[in-house]
Amino acid sequence: MKAFTPEIEVAIARTRDEVAALHSELVRNGLVAWTGGNVSGRVPGADVFVIKPSGVSYDELSPENMIVCDLDGSIIPDTPGSERAPSSDTAAHAYVYRNMEHVGGVVHTHSPYATAWAARGEAIPCVLTAMADEFGGEIPVGPFAIIGDDSIGRGIVETLSGHRSRAVLMRNHGPFTIGRDARDAVKAAVMLEDVARTVHIARQGGEPLQIPQGAIDSLYDRYQNVYGQHAKAVLP
Amino acid sequence: MKAFTPEIEVAIARTRDEVAALHSELVRNGLVAWTGGNVSGRVPGADVFVIKPSGVSYDELSPENMIVCDLDGSIIPDTPGSERAPSSDTAAHAYVYRNMEHVGGVVHTHSPYATAWAARGEAIPCVLTAMADEFGGEIPVGPFAIIGDDSIGRGIVETLSGHRSRAVLMRNHGPFTIGRDARDAVKAAVMLEDVARTVHIARQGGEPLQIPQGAIDSLYDRYQNVYGQHAKAVLP
Amino acid sequence: MKAFTPEIEVAIARTRDEVAALHSELVRNGLVAWTGGNVSGRVPGADVFVIKPSGVSYDELSPENMIVCDLDGSIIPDTPGSERAPSSDTAAHAYVYRNMEHVGGVVHTHSPYATAWAARGEAIPCVLTAMADEFGGEIPVGPFAIIGDDSIGRGIVETLSGHRSRAVLMRNHGPFTIGRDARDAVKAAVMLEDVARTVHIARQGGEPLQIPQGAIDSLYDRYQNVYGQHAKAVLP
Amino acid sequence: MKAFTPEIEVAIARTRDEVAALHSELVRNGLVAWTGGNVSGRVPGADVFVIKPSGVSYDELSPENMIVCDLDGSIIPDTPGSERAPSSDTAAHAYVYRNMEHVGGVVHTHSPYATAWAARGEAIPCVLTAMADEFGGEIPVGPFAIIGDDSIGRGIVETLSGHRSRAVLMRNHGPFTIGRDARDAVKAAVMLEDVARTVHIARQGGEPLQIPQGAIDSLYDRYQNVYGQHAKAVLP
Repeated sequence: MKAFTPEIEVAIARTRDEVAALHSELVRNGLVAWTGGNVSGRVPGADVFVIKPSGVSYDELSPENMIVCDLDGSIIPDTPGSERAPSSDTAAHAYVYRNMEHVGGVVHTHSPYATAWAARGEAIPCVLTAMADEFGGEIPVGPFAIIGDDSIGRGIVETLSGHRSRAVLMRNHGPFTIGRDARDAVKAAVMLEDVARTVHIARQGGEPLQIPQGAIDSLYDRYQNVYGQHAKAVLP
Repeated sequence: MKAFTPEIEVAIARTRDEVAALHSELVRNGLVAWTGGNVSGRVPGADVFVIKPSGVSYDELSPENMIVCDLDGSIIPDTPGSERAPSSDTAAHAYVYRNMEHVGGVVHTHSPYATAWAARGEAIPCVLTAMADEFGGEIPVGPFAIIGDDSIGRGIVETLSGHRSRAVLMRNHGPFTIGRDARDAVKAAVMLEDVARTVHIARQGGEPLQIPQGAIDSLYDRYQNVYGQHAKAVLP
Repeated sequence: MKAFTPEIEVAIARTRDEVAALHSELVRNGLVAWTGGNVSGRVPGADVFVIKPSGVSYDELSPENMIVCDLDGSIIPDTPGSERAPSSDTAAHAYVYRNMEHVGGVVHTHSPYATAWAARGEAIPCVLTAMADEFGGEIPVGPFAIIGDDSIGRGIVETLSGHRSRAVLMRNHGPFTIGRDARDAVKAAVMLEDVARTVHIARQGGEPLQIPQGAIDSLYDRYQNVYGQHAKAVLP
Repeated sequence: MKAFTPEIEVAIARTRDEVAALHSELVRNGLVAWTGGNVSGRVPGADVFVIKPSGVSYDELSPENMIVCDLDGSIIPDTPGSERAPSSDTAAHAYVYRNMEHVGGVVHTHSPYATAWAARGEAIPCVLTAMADEFGGEIPVGPFAIIGDDSIGRGIVETLSGHRSRAVLMRNHGPFTIGRDARDAVKAAVMLEDVARTVHIARQGGEPLQIPQGAIDSLYDRYQNVYGQHAKAVLP
């Protein structure tokens, strides 16, 4: 068993609790069906992250069956949960953590409205002030990539690097979101589905009105710095 | 600490309870995502209102963390909750209370169907008897306005003054509703989303039929005066 | 207080329980918003029916606050609940009971998909075997009628008399359903919304295929006589 | 009473528990209305299967009222539940078990999005990686067939034999899904509705992008063999 310091052991335990609990938000917000979807969180101060096991029912998820992986996506042996297979999207999560060091959480779902935009390979235009607040503009589309190598992770990183959006619509697949920590990435997944749905509905009845770019910029700036109980760290 | 009379202290406590509890109706009726949305209520007999803190989870809202503000939107110091930041929409709520004295409650959400009409800047036509009952006609659109000054509050007041509707669709943003008290404003938010959805669905299949203006008028009149367990005060 | 026989008192008590409990099915199936919607049930062996009070929250409904009315829609004085106003749709329910003696239950909602068809004044075509089973063909549209006289009740009775359907879409208003008893009318309201939604969705993607009339007839016949744990009484 | 070996009695009891419990997944995932929908499971090692009674509320389903049938769909007399009528779709389930020996579970629903595709008689195109994973390509349409003879069962078997999909959209009727066991068939019903909805929504906004056939093939192959906590048996 790999020797972590006591401080890291505490941080791992806390991340297990947090990641396990956050999965219930995917269910509560209608983002996932059956065992689909996954949340991971980077352990502060260590080169490891915590992720959901593969194909396990949401009712059975607990801190103990979360899986600890290193940044190559390999399971840390002899840790709780290490006897199980991690989420089949683990390689994509690991790629993001290796290449975006400010990212502390990653979420993947097939939430229906966001995935519908992804199926058409169409970015979601920023026609809501809530999108400007949360994502700073449109939600971009990532490339078509199938599981089995680094191509999903690479597609996420290439699309989101230098972009304000914490969400990417992987073509014909579904959304990935990133955040400061796992909770922030889950929030992005929830807000993404909300705006994907609202803009879809809006467009069914005609063309939504544009928001001037200057207004988008100032909404994004204010929200990233002022909203909530304390100013938020801005993602690069 | 500002000295309120004992009667006002009781009224504040009652409004805290009411406003905190009413937030759960936003969740139950699917009007809000994550920490979005807010309810406020004017304290009867005092120039203060009670509003939700900013960016706090719906699960954690309680009477104690509601925030008491004066009609300029400033927090009353040394009251429970005053250490937190109030809803980022507090200035808009305050503007409404300052300028519409018959209003005792204000609600803001990004409920998906109402917000979709707002994204197109399109009023919801009155093609349902339930709309005639509850809103007396179409749901109007308010101007595009961004947070940071009085422009949202002013847009609400200018659109709803002299209008039968207790709901306004702020362009590219979402709905605000007003009411006699916080509960009445929440009811308006729930009914608004219900009619926004039904009229949207109706229009996807063709043109809804018109309701004659005379029928709209008599439905509205009856509902405001007869429905429920007692005649309701009519909003001016 | 009107003197009922002990047997009728027992039947009234049972109907109160049943009608109060059935309202929760309207909520559970997403057919109602806020205090909208109502269920009533005829008391077997007596010329009275039990209905919901007006404008009361679904959480507060109980057998005790249900209201007993005669077939003119007048409250039976000095019975539990008689101090409250009954549903504003009571006159329509009473008209149905007076004029359709085989009807033992009536339900009214503004369920969104059924109401959307009603807003266009368009019958729902029978393109699903489940519709043939349950309704024996299309769901018809009733006239535009506003509250205040017998016109809603008359519209329901005229549309459904001699029709297989237990559901009518009142124009610009919403559905009313009837049944052998209150439970059967609630079932019809639930199944109506289900088929209203499915046929709506089907039509968004193109024209649904027709079902031959002979197949509709034999499905309806079988379902009315064979389905469930015992053969059902056929509505005339 | 037919004499089963003690081992078979244990297997029957286990299948009763499983089939009864799985019905709650239909409700939880929004696939059924009122008493519609049914799940059955083949008892390993015996020529019998367990199915839901007809027209019974989902709240009242329990292991004891599940019904044991032979592969002709006849109730095994003198077993718990045998006094009730089985699901009206029992003949279709039995036909599948008789003719597809690798099938251990069958599910039927009228889930709204899948049924909408069925109403148009239109296959769901494989434009999502999740569809490639789970179904290996498009979801096919089965013939129009009405209850009363073998035609529904025959339509299911003819459509799914030699097809990768575990789901078929019976024309103007709704979906049937099959699986290794009852749980696998329920999973297919849940995933089917999820993709039926997402592809429907995608198409409302334009044409979804195609996935190359080679990518569909490799996604299907990987998912059938690698996903989850152990390699899955591949359906022929």
